[in-house]
Amino acid sequence: MMRIVVDAMGSDNRPQPDVKGAIDAAKQFKDDEIILVGPQDVVAATIAKHGAQPDNLRVVHAGEIIQMSDKPSTVGKDKPESSMHVGLGLVKSGDADAFVTAGNTGAAHAIAMLFSLRRIPNVKRPALALIFPIHEKPVIFLDVGANAEARADWLAQYAIMGSVYASNALGLRSPKVGLVSNGEEEGKGTAVIQEAGRLIKQLPLDFVGNIEPADIHGGLVDVVVADGFTGNILIKTFESATRYLGEVIRKEIKASFISSIGGLLARGAFQRVRQKVNADEIGGAPLLGVNGVVIIAHGSSDAKSIKNAIGQARIAVQGQVVQSITDKMQAFNRIQQEN
Amino acid sequence: MMRIVVDAMGSDNRPQPDVKGAIDAAKQFKDDEIILVGPQDVVAATIAKHGAQPDNLRVVHAGEIIQMSDKPSTVGKDKPESSMHVGLGLVKSGDADAFVTAGNTGAAHAIAMLFSLRRIPNVKRPALALIFPIHEKPVIFLDVGANAEARADWLAQYAIMGSVYASNALGLRSPKVGLVSNGEEEGKGTAVIQEAGRLIKQLPLDFVGNIEPADIHGGLVDVVVADGFTGNILIKTFESATRYLGEVIRKEIKASFISSIGGLLARGAFQRVRQKVNADEIGGAPLLGVNGVVIIAHGSSDAKSIKNAIGQARIAVQGQVVQSITDKMQAFNRIQQEN
Repeated sequence: MMRIVVDAMGSDNRPQPDVKGAIDAAKQFKDDEIILVGPQDVVAATIAKHGAQPDNLRVVHAGEIIQMSDKPSTVGKDKPESSMHVGLGLVKSGDADAFVTAGNTGAAHAIAMLFSLRRIPNVKRPALALIFPIHEKPVIFLDVGANAEARADWLAQYAIMGSVYASNALGLRSPKVGLVSNGEEEGKGTAVIQEAGRLIKQLPLDFVGNIEPADIHGGLVDVVVADGFTGNILIKTFESATRYLGEVIRKEIKASFISSIGGLLARGAFQRVRQKVNADEIGGAPLLGVNGVVIIAHGSSDAKSIKNAIGQARIAVQGQVVQSITDKMQAFNRIQQEN
Repeated sequence: MMRIVVDAMGSDNRPQPDVKGAIDAAKQFKDDEIILVGPQDVVAATIAKHGAQPDNLRVVHAGEIIQMSDKPSTVGKDKPESSMHVGLGLVKSGDADAFVTAGNTGAAHAIAMLFSLRRIPNVKRPALALIFPIHEKPVIFLDVGANAEARADWLAQYAIMGSVYASNALGLRSPKVGLVSNGEEEGKGTAVIQEAGRLIKQLPLDFVGNIEPADIHGGLVDVVVADGFTGNILIKTFESATRYLGEVIRKEIKASFISSIGGLLARGAFQRVRQKVNADEIGGAPLLGVNGVVIIAHGSSDAKSIKNAIGQARIAVQGQVVQSITDKMQAFNRIQQEN
């Protein structure tokens, strides 16, 4: 039996998608317990809208609400009764196994790091990992924004954490790891990237070396490592490029009568394309390196995305991701000290 | 009358596209002189394949050929008779107004900087600028790879050079400048990006602040500033994301009979989309900051792209881009010294 905490006040449209997602998860994963954290009255009223409360769904009160505009640097101190504090606290105390939120990423990161779970021993910095499906296969991409800048040894740790997640949670055997750079040759990249490449090469990982964006879509790797600045820009460029291309296609199809008919006939195909390229299907991004399972879903999540994020949390718990990262980090620390 | 030098031995399929592009440009721009630089016999034979040599097309001999695999750090010394040395030399000596090549970018950069044109006074580092059409309007994006790392004052200089090119060559009045970061808020980004933002704010430019990838496609800005590492990855992600989406669409359309018919009917629309998103239409990337007009076309350029790159070189000469950057850099230098 697993116990998954869900932040009822996370998403942009809270508490509706968060609560509905939790209810749907409770119905699907009957052996598990889903714990909704948020203002008791608000959460109860929202649950009531969806019929009888499932037996394996429980509400834990948390009076304060974190806004998307709240500053990560101060919100930890300012709102000690928030659903993030209470929810992450349940994981820390051992009363729950994982925490899922669609709220302010920076706040979740700061509260987890400074007020509750803290880091896995030897981890320098946590990384936010995005999982997205490329050609039917998941690729894990980190860091997408937990830390804008990264030192070379942090990047090496991202490679380890990403590999653990890929094998333990995504079921990829001996995952291939690539380091994002502005060219595949070894001499390419900033000084930090070059140093990170040298470090990762020494680790017991299947490291393919520097990769370029086309390699990600080409299925060359399972784990993509980048600093948070580059990673964040890369995924946002991917999103905005596909959205832009979609707009241009829509416009051009509408520009003639014949092609409009064509567009209508191909509507099913376009729908399948949207589903494939839509990141919501994946549900959430694990925050790797904190001492407990934390999954951060997109602010715009609907109930289905929240349910998927809960599913992802279950898989991370089942795969013992945190324990495995703990072990690997001990080994990494030994290698570092020997050098 | 303008005199544009074209590297006959630049592109992946040289000398065919390079020579044909030069011939087509000579025919179109009858008042100008086009100077093809490369091995005399090879170039002459290629010209002969396309009929009579236009009167305004001239060949200048250069015996050595630079490969894409040649190292920028050594090629300048190793091949002093290359078409890049000779071609850039013509611009330096005042015998020509601009140089166009589809060859090794790093080599062109190194040879221009160390062996011929050198920098415009006060310019810290040149930047490679890409021009791409978004929603029918050109956007200039720099640096896309001249220097992987950039200091804050280099980025500020990129902003100035990009603005000059946007107004003088692209005809955009009071171009809006944005700085790529992992979030629009002022506190976002690496330490260098934050410092660059403060510097650019003090300049007499229309600076909109930090921008994200979606803002580029959203038409918010005319000049996009990034360090060469980030810029290179951003444009490669854009290319690979649109190619990936194109593949997924093709596959899904073929997956059913009805949608295949739809795809056939919409074929014209897809062709127009490809044209719009295809960077070849633009032709080349100016290398801004070197003391002369240098346009670098894609290695995969066809004759049309080469001709377009020559057209771009003409516009840069006409717009007195180099003189204008020289003046602005003097002013920037004064501001820097006063601070």
